Amino acid sequence: MQNSELIDNIFNCNPRAIARAITRVESGSAGAAELMKAVFPHTGKAVVIGITGSPGAGKSSLVDKLALHYKSAGETVGIICIDPSSPFSGGAILGDRIRMATLGMEKGVFIRSMATRGNLGGLSRATVDAVAILDASGFDKVIVETVGVGQDEVEIVKTADVSVVVLVPGMGDDIQAIKAGIMEIGDCFVINKADREGVIRTQKELEALLGLAHRPDMWMPPIVRTIATESKGVDDLAAAIEAYHKFQREGEGSTVRRHAIAKWRLLELLQERLLSDLMNRNGTSEKLDKLALEIAEKKNDPYSAVEELIS
Amino acid sequence: MQNSELIDNIFNCNPRAIARAITRVESGSAGAAELMKAVFPHTGKAVVIGITGSPGAGKSSLVDKLALHYKSAGETVGIICIDPSSPFSGGAILGDRIRMATLGMEKGVFIRSMATRGNLGGLSRATVDAVAILDASGFDKVIVETVGVGQDEVEIVKTADVSVVVLVPGMGDDIQAIKAGIMEIGDCFVINKADREGVIRTQKELEALLGLAHRPDMWMPPIVRTIATESKGVDDLAAAIEAYHKFQREGEGSTVRRHAIAKWRLLELLQERLLSDLMNRNGTSEKLDKLALEIAEKKNDPYSAVEELIS
Repeated sequence: MQNSELIDNIFNCNPRAIARAITRVESGSAGAAELMKAVFPHTGKAVVIGITGSPGAGKSSLVDKLALHYKSAGETVGIICIDPSSPFSGGAILGDRIRMATLGMEKGVFIRSMATRGNLGGLSRATVDAVAILDASGFDKVIVETVGVGQDEVEIVKTADVSVVVLVPGMGDDIQAIKAGIMEIGDCFVINKADREGVIRTQKELEALLGLAHRPDMWMPPIVRTIATESKGVDDLAAAIEAYHKFQREGEGSTVRRHAIAKWRLLELLQERLLSDLMNRNGTSEKLDKLALEIAEKKNDPYSAVEELIS
Repeated sequence: MQNSELIDNIFNCNPRAIARAITRVESGSAGAAELMKAVFPHTGKAVVIGITGSPGAGKSSLVDKLALHYKSAGETVGIICIDPSSPFSGGAILGDRIRMATLGMEKGVFIRSMATRGNLGGLSRATVDAVAILDASGFDKVIVETVGVGQDEVEIVKTADVSVVVLVPGMGDDIQAIKAGIMEIGDCFVINKADREGVIRTQKELEALLGLAHRPDMWMPPIVRTIATESKGVDDLAAAIEAYHKFQREGEGSTVRRHAIAKWRLLELLQERLLSDLMNRNGTSEKLDKLALEIAEKKNDPYSAVEELIS
């Protein structure tokens, strides 16, 4: 499909066109840049919600229920799931397929899983592009859900309008949970599986931690208790998300945040572009393989090899 | 300190020199490349152990106990903790400081926490460099512990000789835990907090998953149960790590693995170098700020901005 036709179909919120466009930015194929240039001016209308938290916290269920909540309020929802699967597997995941088969059948809900392939990175850039495509397609809400909790994931969630961090009771046991650096990115906190033992303790520990934090915008992140599997607390979460989004829109913080996000995005894209420009030069790929072998055999070191590649 | 003096002191396993060298590669300061060129030929003797798993799985305690196990066997241990803290906080963490104050007092144990700063990334490269410094310093074992479980962390752990994935009972409840993509990078699995309810079920689920996986090297990853806080099972873990390391050394897999690691490392370094070369050009930084502002105000799009920066 030509870009121009694809772009028209994106603006008509055609799910197949959207899926194809996302594949195009994901693979970094020719035409992806042109596509995004056309998409970009139409972004900025959707509320982008980033959801992160430990594996096992029940994020998928929560995202599904939140999507259904928005749907029943007459809104359309696009969902991007980021999966830190290894390059070996290519990231085809049974659970996601089941989920897409059920949730994806809902009218007005689009769900897509994204995973890195190969070593050139670009997950962050591709994800942010995919969000922009959903935004330009006219979805009212775009949810970005990360499976992992790492540096890349934190960066991605920070590009959302509202970031939600999901915890479960008992996690506060461990200083690890606190250290994970996800605390300070949360605009809203969820204690999911709130029928489990230890919920009050986890809430108290979380309150204490949030009391210590100093947010430049002076927002005090609310803590919402949910039982996603029973749809309990999902309305409260939606209200908390809306409250922060309203607060942010009315404050001055949003300009600063948008500038920081734009800069981060620019750097990501720049880095990817510089590498691909170099790699596309004749013979670079073979040279890289040869140098990697020399390094593996300790006949060369990575720093000298990089200088050789650049010169 | 001059590089030559610093390098001599590294080879003498001087903790202050090691700490200073790591700071140098972390900040990407002048002389870091020269330093690493000198360090690199002296690497390859240490056994590098990568440890990952969800926040709250008790990785820190496990790493501490494993380090003490090696120490009591007369070996020296270097530990690098990777923390996905946000650029806002700069990554100063109370828990780590306490830990370093206790474990760091042990003779023959070096512990260091690393976090990304700013937006230029480079965590992976800096971590791998830090591991090389500890290796060249003569530590028998080097342990890399990730707090997060994301794409960057998976990549880093894959550069280790032996990768350990830490789980806790009850995580198997959730398809999320399985999806996290950390399954296939584990050469050894640990079920920590093995006195908790659900340990048998978690073990059975894990066994079933591992039975489905196809490792190119035909290794069947062992599952070890531990209670790190009571030092239980730590000997078994050390034995499992040693078993895989022996298997790998004797097989042909290690050459392929070393080549893949060298290539990944080269790409990381190359990407960082290309970006920093561009950013160091006169006026690029101001131009980047200006373009980011234009993007935030929707007067420009990131793809066109990148072309403007590169041209």
